[in-house]
Amino acid sequence: MEAKKDLQEKLDYLREMYEKLIPFDRLLGIEIDTLTLTDIKIRIDMREELIGNFIRGMLHGGVISSVLDLTGGLIASVELVKHLENVEPDEVARRVARVGTIDLRVDYLRAGKGVYFTASGTVLRKGNKVAVIRTELCNDQNLLIAAGTGTYLVG
Amino acid sequence: MEAKKDLQEKLDYLREMYEKLIPFDRLLGIEIDTLTLTDIKIRIDMREELIGNFIRGMLHGGVISSVLDLTGGLIASVELVKHLENVEPDEVARRVARVGTIDLRVDYLRAGKGVYFTASGTVLRKGNKVAVIRTELCNDQNLLIAAGTGTYLVG
Amino acid sequence: MEAKKDLQEKLDYLREMYEKLIPFDRLLGIEIDTLTLTDIKIRIDMREELIGNFIRGMLHGGVISSVLDLTGGLIASVELVKHLENVEPDEVARRVARVGTIDLRVDYLRAGKGVYFTASGTVLRKGNKVAVIRTELCNDQNLLIAAGTGTYLVG
Amino acid sequence: MEAKKDLQEKLDYLREMYEKLIPFDRLLGIEIDTLTLTDIKIRIDMREELIGNFIRGMLHGGVISSVLDLTGGLIASVELVKHLENVEPDEVARRVARVGTIDLRVDYLRAGKGVYFTASGTVLRKGNKVAVIRTELCNDQNLLIAAGTGTYLVG
Repeated sequence: MEAKKDLQEKLDYLREMYEKLIPFDRLLGIEIDTLTLTDIKIRIDMREELIGNFIRGMLHGGVISSVLDLTGGLIASVELVKHLENVEPDEVARRVARVGTIDLRVDYLRAGKGVYFTASGTVLRKGNKVAVIRTELCNDQNLLIAAGTGTYLVG
Repeated sequence: MEAKKDLQEKLDYLREMYEKLIPFDRLLGIEIDTLTLTDIKIRIDMREELIGNFIRGMLHGGVISSVLDLTGGLIASVELVKHLENVEPDEVARRVARVGTIDLRVDYLRAGKGVYFTASGTVLRKGNKVAVIRTELCNDQNLLIAAGTGTYLVG
Repeated sequence: MEAKKDLQEKLDYLREMYEKLIPFDRLLGIEIDTLTLTDIKIRIDMREELIGNFIRGMLHGGVISSVLDLTGGLIASVELVKHLENVEPDEVARRVARVGTIDLRVDYLRAGKGVYFTASGTVLRKGNKVAVIRTELCNDQNLLIAAGTGTYLVG
Repeated sequence: MEAKKDLQEKLDYLREMYEKLIPFDRLLGIEIDTLTLTDIKIRIDMREELIGNFIRGMLHGGVISSVLDLTGGLIASVELVKHLENVEPDEVARRVARVGTIDLRVDYLRAGKGVYFTASGTVLRKGNKVAVIRTELCNDQNLLIAAGTGTYLVG
């Protein structure tokens, strides 16, 4: 029961971090749609400022890579905090702040058209030093817009 | 002489596009420091909104991938317009609008700390369908912050 | 009926090419386990010559990247020949010979231990110029050893 | 003087490992052309068994990715042993055996034609957990055939 409460506090901290504390995430306007230990979904609504191709009205490739990068980082952070027990909130913040992207590949598969987009991912490798996360961005029609694979430093 | 004037007009169009027409480039605040046929440099000034790691005050990874992606795209576009001769301005715009990133790898090498950052790149492969561009982001101390390799559709 | 026969001939040609005509595929010892329009599986049996880490007896990373690369290339070739109709066998050979890897990312996820390994993949993007194929290598216990994403020139 | 001798022994061990102990490196026929602390060059001679495109007589993409991967791994290993002092030979072998590729990107830039090929690289990132190495493969005319970027676990 204590452990459950403890875990929920960590997830709440991650939500606050991604939605309020990280300035560039606020500039992008990302929202955390779902955040549990097993299911994580990020949402971003289309707006004029996020456009790259102004002739065709498509999401900028940089918005796509940003969202895939931060989705992978959030998934890697959840994997990390899962295994942190009996640790003070300050220590959780310190550990999460050290999670960093080592490298990222993004494949741009379809034109980034849509009213909103959602990103999710799966853990391909989870070690005590490095995690590899595969991510996907879909539009509101559930069409796959882009796919990513990122390597993250986690310890 | 005509050809030279023609070429400068195309470069001016690319500058206007990247600095004024692409909404997300304006949101990021990117500036074109240098834009000639052989030398291209993008600059972005640090500001609070671009921060990712709020504890350590570092540039967000998404800003880095965005800048490397658009720098590669600009270099690929310059390669494209170099070889467009006797073509109407509208056709130049149409052709450049079709340049798109197929995939991108970014390696995050050092903490993104600095007052400003500059990005540049080199052409690794230039075909009539696909170009591969290698890019780099340095801070104001000329330290290499990140490196990228992108594959672009050009025709 | 003719079309079906025609298609089978093309698949037979691809099988012969990968199993007999490509010298390095023979050196590796790859076999085509399954080859239909919708299901493609490559198999490679472990043997001493394919080892990289001699202390731990693991498959060499180069064998893994080779198998993922050629699996993606075979899938891209099947996508290509699917849409070639009323074309002479010589032309099929010429078109397939032009399929080439533009770039490839490989993620090494687990130690390459096993008696045999199988590779398969899915098409993420299929255009008339470029295809993006995601591939996976599993061992005989069906554990995911490595994942790849490759961009292929197809036209 | 002792330190120098000690270092040379470690480099000799790495040479023996890559040229004699790793079975797949022997199958490929790789040779270490140069191996000092600051200059590393791998060579591979063209032969019929290494061909991929049998119509055009080009090096197989898998040979290219294998050579770039092992070149990056050797460079990462040299970085590692540089900083191992007063360590028994057995411990050197154990530490080097743990160096592993986490991920690799390869860009295939030109047809792999040549009598022989050489690979070299540079360190982009060197940490105590992870190293990022950029590599290149040139043919005997010094034309750039392929470029790689690999992330290696080093500690």
